[in-house]
Amino acid sequence: MAQAIRLAKQGLRTTHPNPRVGCVLVKDGQVIGSGFHKVAGEGHAEVNALANAAADVTGSTAYVTLEPCSHQGKTPPCADALIKAGVACVVFGMQDPNPEVAGRGLAKLRDAGIEVIGPVLETECRALNPGFIKRMEEGLPFVRVKLAMSLDGRTAMESGESQWITGPEARLDVQRLRAQSSAIVTGIGSVIMDDPSMTVRIDAQDQLCKPDQVRQPLRVIMDTALSVPPEAKILYPTNQVCVFFDEEEAEPEHVALLTQKGVALRPLPLGEDGRLDLVEAMGQLADEGINEVLVETGAELAGAFLLAGLVDELVVYMAPKLLGSEARPLLRLPIENMAEAVNLDLVDVRKIGADLKLVYVPNYDDEEDDA
Amino acid sequence: MAQAIRLAKQGLRTTHPNPRVGCVLVKDGQVIGSGFHKVAGEGHAEVNALANAAADVTGSTAYVTLEPCSHQGKTPPCADALIKAGVACVVFGMQDPNPEVAGRGLAKLRDAGIEVIGPVLETECRALNPGFIKRMEEGLPFVRVKLAMSLDGRTAMESGESQWITGPEARLDVQRLRAQSSAIVTGIGSVIMDDPSMTVRIDAQDQLCKPDQVRQPLRVIMDTALSVPPEAKILYPTNQVCVFFDEEEAEPEHVALLTQKGVALRPLPLGEDGRLDLVEAMGQLADEGINEVLVETGAELAGAFLLAGLVDELVVYMAPKLLGSEARPLLRLPIENMAEAVNLDLVDVRKIGADLKLVYVPNYDDEEDDA
Repeated sequence: MAQAIRLAKQGLRTTHPNPRVGCVLVKDGQVIGSGFHKVAGEGHAEVNALANAAADVTGSTAYVTLEPCSHQGKTPPCADALIKAGVACVVFGMQDPNPEVAGRGLAKLRDAGIEVIGPVLETECRALNPGFIKRMEEGLPFVRVKLAMSLDGRTAMESGESQWITGPEARLDVQRLRAQSSAIVTGIGSVIMDDPSMTVRIDAQDQLCKPDQVRQPLRVIMDTALSVPPEAKILYPTNQVCVFFDEEEAEPEHVALLTQKGVALRPLPLGEDGRLDLVEAMGQLADEGINEVLVETGAELAGAFLLAGLVDELVVYMAPKLLGSEARPLLRLPIENMAEAVNLDLVDVRKIGADLKLVYVPNYDDEEDDA
Repeated sequence: MAQAIRLAKQGLRTTHPNPRVGCVLVKDGQVIGSGFHKVAGEGHAEVNALANAAADVTGSTAYVTLEPCSHQGKTPPCADALIKAGVACVVFGMQDPNPEVAGRGLAKLRDAGIEVIGPVLETECRALNPGFIKRMEEGLPFVRVKLAMSLDGRTAMESGESQWITGPEARLDVQRLRAQSSAIVTGIGSVIMDDPSMTVRIDAQDQLCKPDQVRQPLRVIMDTALSVPPEAKILYPTNQVCVFFDEEEAEPEHVALLTQKGVALRPLPLGEDGRLDLVEAMGQLADEGINEVLVETGAELAGAFLLAGLVDELVVYMAPKLLGSEARPLLRLPIENMAEAVNLDLVDVRKIGADLKLVYVPNYDDEEDDA
């Protein structure tokens, strides 16, 4: 199964909107075939493993990180393929997270007389697909907020000057986060301040390359008043971008101009706080198959994501410098007393170049009793 | 020498104002004696090692972390003791850092026909005594600034509410930092806000104990207008405290009252910025034998130490929580553009309980060209 997990990871940047899945076929103690799911529409892991088996697969055991599918999608059901191939045993890593189908693939295998064992290494198999699982289970994408800051928690000078706080190694690591995401979300403030392109500029081998040589995540702009400049880099190519906005606040001429340029404009209701309803926006993205969202934005929007309870992971790149007390704060979070503090769990820390990479999981449940 | 270094560390909390020194005597490949300096006024490491040697020390080799002293202090010179004992060879870790005596002890040994080898493991031996070395070489103590903050770089709520940001393990670690310090410096703001006692409450075995059972560092208050309340906990016992203040701003009645209580009041000139001259204060403390200073204070004074170029080490305890953008900043540092940012080198990171302990060294030289 560990080998199947390693295979699955090869699809980290490409399977969207599908999950990353790996499969290994073993017979008489020998690996006779292996495969992983690479791109949606092409073969699933099980089918790829069967296809490149070096020996007769009859009577073999298939190790697969995710329950084989039982339904006809863009490709035929994998459970059927395994049955047809004469596989004797299937060891699975986790059930299909979709509540409506969970277990049906396994039942189909059992009904065909195949021995079914699992879940095996479930935690590791789940970790392959945090976004796919959350989307299936909760109808929301997995939201990762990336922040780059100084030791004293500042993201930019008061003037807005910010490039670059962190070093080149940390910036390359951000490219990796982008590459594995289905969508990148930013706010209009960041667009106007920095005019970022928000594209992925590395390939799976971490080589720097041109943006058109890799799968590009959807670029999403939260822009209440629809004030994104028509020439903003992030809008192009327009087929990979969408802008959430409030129809009441947008100027009709601007709507027309952007629409004419092919930008997908999506009206969104406002939440109780008078801002765009982020939960609604994330729900809509999940409905469209967005698994993992990377939020790269300023203090206002990042704070709003946290307050909305939408953040699954905070990835903080902390530079070894002090920007001082006049500089801009990390997150706009209006908290008045310690009992309201947002508690986090530190799940990873490592040095990247001269910077520290810190990964935290917000502990929303704990907020009231652990301050 | 590694063993001598380990021995020296046993004096970490007690040798003040002397350096931590360890000594191991080896003869025919066997350790025949060892010792370390424990308390000023009592035996030095070499003398202790000679005293508890289990065999005749004639012809043995002495491994000692610091050049043996050549002058009469509270105890007789160690070089003489080694010569008298008939030691054949001395391996030393580092020269005496005092420019006026450096090498004289070694010369004395050589003149007596003893083979002298070194420096050996010099970096490790120097690390035993950052304060003693800096005091000898620069006439200033080694200044360590301790900060406790949230991930977003905040030390307290806007209201001042601050206890406790970090967990019990981190707070115990601060006790360790206090225990190895010659002096603890704080500002009047912290005294008025928190009324801390600033005493060491652990012994060398890290057992919690009463303050009178361990060596207590000098407690130093920076208090320009001499507004420390006579009942402040930090003032007692008064024989271990001193208050730096500006004579022009202090009320004579308050001076008289505190003096009557036995508090050492020390007038200090103001610097160009209109604050107490921190360099002058640190110089005075060094003159009195203060090796390591721990600064535990608020954003104002910690920022002033940084701006004065006095900080040798920043020890940051970072709690896994967000206190929000209304909370108090880590350091009062008026910096306007990235070029003025204070650059640091991260030298250690470790998890302590749920918190991270980060150790940085300010890179003062680098400020102008590395932003």
